[in-house]
Amino acid sequence: MANGAGTGEAIWHGGDLATAKALFPDAPEPWIDLSTGINPFPYPLPALPLSLWQRLPGAREEAALLAAARGAYRVQPQSGIVAAPGTQILIELLPRLVPKASVAVLGPTYGEHALAWRKAGAEVREIMDLSEAGDANVVVVVNPNNPDGRVVDIAALAMLAGRLAAQGGLLVIDEAFADFQPKISLVPALPAGALVLRSFGKAYGLAGLRLGFAIGEGRHVEALRAMLGPWAVAGPALRIGAQALADTGWLAAQEKARAADAHRLDAALAPHGRIVGGTVLYRLLETSEAPALFERFGRAGIYVRRFRHDPSRLRLGLPGSEADWARLAAVLAVAAEPA
Amino acid sequence: MANGAGTGEAIWHGGDLATAKALFPDAPEPWIDLSTGINPFPYPLPALPLSLWQRLPGAREEAALLAAARGAYRVQPQSGIVAAPGTQILIELLPRLVPKASVAVLGPTYGEHALAWRKAGAEVREIMDLSEAGDANVVVVVNPNNPDGRVVDIAALAMLAGRLAAQGGLLVIDEAFADFQPKISLVPALPAGALVLRSFGKAYGLAGLRLGFAIGEGRHVEALRAMLGPWAVAGPALRIGAQALADTGWLAAQEKARAADAHRLDAALAPHGRIVGGTVLYRLLETSEAPALFERFGRAGIYVRRFRHDPSRLRLGLPGSEADWARLAAVLAVAAEPA
Repeated sequence: MANGAGTGEAIWHGGDLATAKALFPDAPEPWIDLSTGINPFPYPLPALPLSLWQRLPGAREEAALLAAARGAYRVQPQSGIVAAPGTQILIELLPRLVPKASVAVLGPTYGEHALAWRKAGAEVREIMDLSEAGDANVVVVVNPNNPDGRVVDIAALAMLAGRLAAQGGLLVIDEAFADFQPKISLVPALPAGALVLRSFGKAYGLAGLRLGFAIGEGRHVEALRAMLGPWAVAGPALRIGAQALADTGWLAAQEKARAADAHRLDAALAPHGRIVGGTVLYRLLETSEAPALFERFGRAGIYVRRFRHDPSRLRLGLPGSEADWARLAAVLAVAAEPA
Repeated sequence: MANGAGTGEAIWHGGDLATAKALFPDAPEPWIDLSTGINPFPYPLPALPLSLWQRLPGAREEAALLAAARGAYRVQPQSGIVAAPGTQILIELLPRLVPKASVAVLGPTYGEHALAWRKAGAEVREIMDLSEAGDANVVVVVNPNNPDGRVVDIAALAMLAGRLAAQGGLLVIDEAFADFQPKISLVPALPAGALVLRSFGKAYGLAGLRLGFAIGEGRHVEALRAMLGPWAVAGPALRIGAQALADTGWLAAQEKARAADAHRLDAALAPHGRIVGGTVLYRLLETSEAPALFERFGRAGIYVRRFRHDPSRLRLGLPGSEADWARLAAVLAVAAEPA
């Protein structure tokens, strides 16, 4: 479980307001959750016939979802794709693709990658630059990176994939936040040895749905499909995902609107520190006042993401309404006053 | 994928009408799906706040689900319980609890158990009686059994669990269809070495939701929880499951009504063969005319479950409306006429 205050080894995650409420029991409700990078403007839910809930998810519905995903992510015909109930379960299963893995994770990044490989008994190093990958046979890159938005270019990734493929290894690219940066995706020209994870819930604002994909060589994708077994994705998720992923107009409009929001958030935060990165869905603020600012936000009922190993940074997602923007501005106005 | 006519090794499943339509393209629509044991009267869906779809599933919602499941399944305080997106994924993960497994599956039964252990490299035998378990360190019992409803009594299971626990093994009890036979459940007096799977979708008629549970020793349950990772169950499933599992009145009323339906189905089938078993949610018919009857049903748009390795049997779920009962009766009336 996410743990906002403890010193244990559990990974800190955003997104669970129970943690926020426990930390700040006197904060005003409703909470504004800026602790994740989930789009606060969800894809409009289509009508869901009762049969989607009643029946085992059908092969036809799954095929429709995968066809839409192939279009949205520009998957080549020769690449495989499998759907799962969220990317997280795929992260948990990946270590079974490379039994004797020596893993390099380009960090600092989303903590669950390193943890999953360690749980499986692999040796895991965090590296700061791909040149430090050494003789690792598995390299994990979150692209764009969470939380700092760092982007590794396609040519470097393709070269690395080739080297890893030659030694029976694997390049894992987590493109959870790539929907609004389609040019950086490795999927349209996927090299052998690379496996890309895509997350549905973040850009489409429906993280509770649990839907994610792995795209890669047929043998890797089929192995994951076998590990998941039949009916892995819920009926409503098949339908919603198929409709949303085919709706390119919605995504394009969101890209524009959320980019404007990100710009607005940067402007609001600028007097309080330095924006050191992020994506259209979250911004990373660096300031020596980060712990104090976290407290101030929390007491005002605004939950932002802090980092156990880097107390000088805060990550903020986008507010979803003018009321939320106003509460954010009020906290920042007080924070800016001299003590 | 389920394969209604092929000779490959894929397991045949009910529940996918795409298969039925491919087999009988000229059948009248809508299809009546009697190929599963899913209750045709689903638990009424509660209102689902948008936040359940938007947000990552929260620890508080998960705790509420698990509390309701503990009550419904009568889980002892010292036993652990974990929720998953369907029982199937748990079946796929179980082999990782016993790395060097010699497995005996009490058969014939639901095919995915043996397949999952085989995929993990275990040696798997199908046994016809628990006395044949020999030196297996993992024994799998579906209780009540699918498709024949066979019940193994609690005392025999407890003794077996004790023996397996002593050698570091595992007794897997799949109680997917036990909701309407609470007295046969091993959960309320769970012995060491036993792990019970419970499926939400069948009795509650919501198989598309994907929700299942594993109940057992803390160490086994925690290992499964770690394999699933965070946010395994979708937000809507957490809420619907919590509400349904706490609604004992609904389940009691369903038990009575569906038992009456099962009795009615037996009476309808009696002239065509022998009812050799089943549960309240499905009946197993034995007749040398089974292949012909399967065809007759299919051409009339009624999909029933046949068995690749036992062509003399058909499994039928319960019709969900008087119109469906009438169509079933019409097929049976023709089938009863002399050729």
